[in-house]
Amino acid sequence: MIELSLIGIGTGNPAHLTLQAAEAIRACDLILIPNKGKGKDDLAALRQEICAQVIADAASGPRIVEFDLPVRDPTIADYTARVDHWHDAIARVWIETIRAQLPAPAAAAKVGFLVWGDPSLYDSTMRIAERLKATQEVSLTVIPGVTSIQALTAAHAIPLNEIGAPFTVTTGRQLRENGWPESTDTLVIMLDGECSFQAIDPTGVSIWWSAYAGMENQISLSGPLAETAEQIIQTRAQARADHGWIMDIYLLRKS
Amino acid sequence: MIELSLIGIGTGNPAHLTLQAAEAIRACDLILIPNKGKGKDDLAALRQEICAQVIADAASGPRIVEFDLPVRDPTIADYTARVDHWHDAIARVWIETIRAQLPAPAAAAKVGFLVWGDPSLYDSTMRIAERLKATQEVSLTVIPGVTSIQALTAAHAIPLNEIGAPFTVTTGRQLRENGWPESTDTLVIMLDGECSFQAIDPTGVSIWWSAYAGMENQISLSGPLAETAEQIIQTRAQARADHGWIMDIYLLRKS
Repeated sequence: MIELSLIGIGTGNPAHLTLQAAEAIRACDLILIPNKGKGKDDLAALRQEICAQVIADAASGPRIVEFDLPVRDPTIADYTARVDHWHDAIARVWIETIRAQLPAPAAAAKVGFLVWGDPSLYDSTMRIAERLKATQEVSLTVIPGVTSIQALTAAHAIPLNEIGAPFTVTTGRQLRENGWPESTDTLVIMLDGECSFQAIDPTGVSIWWSAYAGMENQISLSGPLAETAEQIIQTRAQARADHGWIMDIYLLRKS
Repeated sequence: MIELSLIGIGTGNPAHLTLQAAEAIRACDLILIPNKGKGKDDLAALRQEICAQVIADAASGPRIVEFDLPVRDPTIADYTARVDHWHDAIARVWIETIRAQLPAPAAAAKVGFLVWGDPSLYDSTMRIAERLKATQEVSLTVIPGVTSIQALTAAHAIPLNEIGAPFTVTTGRQLRENGWPESTDTLVIMLDGECSFQAIDPTGVSIWWSAYAGMENQISLSGPLAETAEQIIQTRAQARADHGWIMDIYLLRKS
């Protein structure tokens, strides 16, 4: 029996951690931390820092183990099939790592994953956990966290919605391929490596953009999209070159 | 000069508080807590509990003051105008209360508000704070919090989005008046006092519903909408009668 805890840790500011998340980390036997390879991001180091911050006594606390994250297979053309195949591969690495680290587990081995932001939002961890249920007896607990959407609106001190109005959260790919969805004047764009705001008509649209939202090196820009787009593109390219990686998010609103 | 801090406190579970929010509460001179009148909700008491939890030394900590929240004027027919008028009235009470409590404020008086969930999401506090800027010198800091959306998806251990797909967050009123928005298969419905899921065709739609999400007395129901709607309506009515108030949220997904 494996008790999986998917623990939302907020967006890179160790102070985003909730009291509930800290308690959940301390209660684990094993914490698994994905490693994307040197220079890809600082997130493995950040997760280690968060663990060190909340585990007072390392000797009796959870064992913390990094594992190499498989990469997506670029020969699979279909996006959903490629992601499915990748999730299968990650699930296999989870099982191998858990077996190696807890060869004779207690009746219920508590295994934790620290999830950037919140486990429900554009994150694979919950879908990989579902795969474990096919071969293992698994229980699943989700600890909610502060999302990058909240970090973005806090950085700019803006409301997410207009009064009583809807908003849509979507991806850069969706914006490029399907344009601005009808029936909403507010869009939040995530997972956008291509500054996809260039694909829409900027007339009457404002943008609020942040990179590394919530973190020490947070960068925020905002203004009418027509006047701000070029500055965001240049700032993003420079920041990515400086850090070796970038994570950004933005809100678009029609006036 | 007034330094306003709008502090997201999560959804009623004191353990949802982030380290950043706890620090922000301790740094205030004055915390203002809205009071809706006896029996309307337990939220004033909960905010008092959260303050007591994080303020180690009450003598040197912030002053904590409750104020009576004005009610909306039912004679104003237009929804947006009614809300605007209400926000104006709340802003006046804020100013009166701050002046009464800090008659000779320090160079920069730090005034904090504990906001349910996150200050950006279907909450008035940020819009009221903007009104203060018309008459006062005000700086505004927003501390992000765990939202009821995250509490909902954690309660059910479900992803918010399908892989790479958008989702829309909207209100019960919008769902009743405008139906299911095109271009999204996932809807999150907030601010719904009328079980507005009854207004849509339930064919192929599943629902995940929680009341008091994240709190000790959390109630969760899920299933195909056609088979689950009646049970949710009855459970909601009973819970509201038992507690004297209810706060609920749900996710709808087309399969």
